[in-house]
Amino acid sequence: MTAAARIADIAFRIDRNAKTPAFAQLYEAIRARIVSGALAEGVRLPPTRALALDLGLSRSTVNAAYEQLAAEGYVEGRQGAGHFVRPMGEVELPARARPEPRPAARTEAPGAPMPFQPGVPDMRLFPYAQWARRVSRIARTAPASLVTSSDAFGDLQLREAIASHIADWRGVETSAENILITAGSGDALELCIRALAAPGDRVALEDPGYPPLRAFVASLGLSPRWLEIDDAGAAVPEADDGPPPSLAVLTPSHQFPLGGAMTPARRNAFLAWAAEVGARIVEDDYDSEFRYSGRPIPALAGLDGVRRTIYVGSFSKIFSNSLRIGFLAMPDADRPAFRQALRQFGVKASIAPQRPLAAFMADGEFYRHLRRARRIYQERRKALVDGLRSQLGPAADFADHQAGMLLTLRLPEHVDDRAVVAAAGQKGLAPQALSAFYARPTTARGLVLGYCASTVEETAAALPPLVQILKTHGLDC
Amino acid sequence: MTAAARIADIAFRIDRNAKTPAFAQLYEAIRARIVSGALAEGVRLPPTRALALDLGLSRSTVNAAYEQLAAEGYVEGRQGAGHFVRPMGEVELPARARPEPRPAARTEAPGAPMPFQPGVPDMRLFPYAQWARRVSRIARTAPASLVTSSDAFGDLQLREAIASHIADWRGVETSAENILITAGSGDALELCIRALAAPGDRVALEDPGYPPLRAFVASLGLSPRWLEIDDAGAAVPEADDGPPPSLAVLTPSHQFPLGGAMTPARRNAFLAWAAEVGARIVEDDYDSEFRYSGRPIPALAGLDGVRRTIYVGSFSKIFSNSLRIGFLAMPDADRPAFRQALRQFGVKASIAPQRPLAAFMADGEFYRHLRRARRIYQERRKALVDGLRSQLGPAADFADHQAGMLLTLRLPEHVDDRAVVAAAGQKGLAPQALSAFYARPTTARGLVLGYCASTVEETAAALPPLVQILKTHGLDC
Repeated sequence: MTAAARIADIAFRIDRNAKTPAFAQLYEAIRARIVSGALAEGVRLPPTRALALDLGLSRSTVNAAYEQLAAEGYVEGRQGAGHFVRPMGEVELPARARPEPRPAARTEAPGAPMPFQPGVPDMRLFPYAQWARRVSRIARTAPASLVTSSDAFGDLQLREAIASHIADWRGVETSAENILITAGSGDALELCIRALAAPGDRVALEDPGYPPLRAFVASLGLSPRWLEIDDAGAAVPEADDGPPPSLAVLTPSHQFPLGGAMTPARRNAFLAWAAEVGARIVEDDYDSEFRYSGRPIPALAGLDGVRRTIYVGSFSKIFSNSLRIGFLAMPDADRPAFRQALRQFGVKASIAPQRPLAAFMADGEFYRHLRRARRIYQERRKALVDGLRSQLGPAADFADHQAGMLLTLRLPEHVDDRAVVAAAGQKGLAPQALSAFYARPTTARGLVLGYCASTVEETAAALPPLVQILKTHGLDC
Repeated sequence: MTAAARIADIAFRIDRNAKTPAFAQLYEAIRARIVSGALAEGVRLPPTRALALDLGLSRSTVNAAYEQLAAEGYVEGRQGAGHFVRPMGEVELPARARPEPRPAARTEAPGAPMPFQPGVPDMRLFPYAQWARRVSRIARTAPASLVTSSDAFGDLQLREAIASHIADWRGVETSAENILITAGSGDALELCIRALAAPGDRVALEDPGYPPLRAFVASLGLSPRWLEIDDAGAAVPEADDGPPPSLAVLTPSHQFPLGGAMTPARRNAFLAWAAEVGARIVEDDYDSEFRYSGRPIPALAGLDGVRRTIYVGSFSKIFSNSLRIGFLAMPDADRPAFRQALRQFGVKASIAPQRPLAAFMADGEFYRHLRRARRIYQERRKALVDGLRSQLGPAADFADHQAGMLLTLRLPEHVDDRAVVAAAGQKGLAPQALSAFYARPTTARGLVLGYCASTVEETAAALPPLVQILKTHGLDC
């Protein structure tokens, strides 16, 4: 038997001038009523359409609030039947209202990220309650594990979970003792360079590529050896006047930011090159968890048997960028070099989230969340692809790689992509300019468009102003 | 309505000679059939007992395979009813068998650290239960705060707690918006140099000083300008042939590793110097919480009003080094430079421990722990001081600064401190060689002795072998 909540049970004033976004105000109002018992177990929330009409909100705003409540376990959505208040039973729920975000101090706004911002997951989908439950359990059963660790490489349970994860998902067979937990994949890349490149070495980097890596390599005074990207992936560096690079950092699964996987032949050519010149390869597998069709391409490090390749992964794309957990899997022989780098430059990864993540992975909640996020991101990708095709027509020049978290729209050379990005920023949109990912002068122009953090509706609303800006800047469509 | 899978739908040959364990082969066989659609949504898997019999496997092997399938979301177990194939959605999953969990690489060895190891707190004193209680409370009341943050500078509640802490304890008046949470004080120092020194700049560093800072400055190709340490603290850099340093990193409260506070006159001289040459001062206040007698010396940054001085603090010395929380307090004007450095090189600090620490500070548990640790460390310090005096007699050459976490015993020039340290390491003791803290050739010899992590009894037991080693290496006592 199901009671339905009347809109009057929920209705309240949405303050459009508040810093708190409307969806968060609505979320908080409903959450407070569930916690107080005003909305009891089993009660059905008003249909999104009706509530949106009544409160003068868009339906996607109401949807976002409901999704957040569902993600945190307050309500459950039932196919075709609406959203229902879940039993409060086993979980003890908050006794006080979430504090109002304080004014002024921050520059970044909370709530939904800006549309098209690349590399950002949608934290509204995150199963906070499930995560928190594991944190609570560990706080009860292994409190010291949240504060202290005996190994600079990180929590052993997490390292075991990761070893097993990358064996299953990426074909990288290694043992927990070769896994090092880092403060995100940026920290992992830095450690690779610290551990494996000597002062004065050359480091092969993809161009276009990941700007922070470039900045780090430059700051150390190492010489970059730029690798062109062709249809098969990054080009193997040919011999030139200088010494061969001691290290090559590659994104074979999904070139950043162009997309596209390195071909098997090219992978083998890179491994042969590394063996010949005595170089190491660092494989930055930054978003391999998000592949929407076809079989995942096994990692280069798997092909290599982790002999010359260091595999770098991240959880920022699945979780939050704020958790700062990445990892690397290294060849046996490199352990002393990495231990030395940690001694010399310090450990950056916090132990605090490590055991909870190990539990999250071991009991499968991690994979449930991943599957759910993947399904939703796939829909969002499709919506962006369809939207671009319908609104840009023949100017919709992009490869649909069916993977990752971003899509790179190529623009004709006469369109100034940085000017487009600046104009988009004025409208609250956050695409990035393709030309900014190039280290060397380039005629490539384009927009790097993230699609994961915005709902289908949010993207639909954001596309027309973006298209308008593109037209203003000379795109013929 | 539920279909049941017949065993014939699943049965296949288990290869007992394969490297893949039986449970993983079974897991893989079932998974492949679910992915291919041969086992459809809602189908019940054969009962474990029947399948085990049929395949000649133990029931626990079948159970392990089913549990793995359930953990990854392929099937769900229903109490008393068996395992059922879950909806697959559109996602194709990896086609690999999970390898057998490997034996643990090492056992986690908590317990006592090696005697005399500097800079290490005694984690046996840590109030894990009190910490865990706050973590649990936050998991209930503000679960999202453990995973995500809207500000690259860190959790606002923690930043407020720290602003109030350093105002009360160190006389540094600033606001939460100028506090940046870092992954330990090493990360804070790195960020200062990233944000405030341009390529080619000179950076003034104390000699002796903190070796990782030196390594970092050198790795960036910045030129160090060494500062001598005299009785008043680090010497103000006099004009020389080169440009003045743009940055000076100092430990005014307690010089590292010699101990001793910079005099007020010298502090003022440094501030005058910084104003004159347009330099910034980074104040590394690494262990200021541990002062055992006398009034705390206010921070240089307080004297300066945080106009030219960046104040760097750490919680590693109070908590665990593994939590990786430090912070810095910056002048208003430097916020854009630090935001830019975070964008360019990435945030390293995890959000996970931040809100719990804010709660720990706000409700006073932090201060209870600090007071207790201070009382105990003071006893330990006294035991070491008394022990050295009684066992070394006139050779007990050290200044008792009544502060910090380490004591530096000076040795005559003819005693090879690195050889002493190597011999001590053989006996399970971990002092460090004073000469190793110098950047330039030095005649200074000594032992840097941590005393916080060992009990009075542990130190009493460790001193005689250390004294014996010193005698063997030529110390006359």
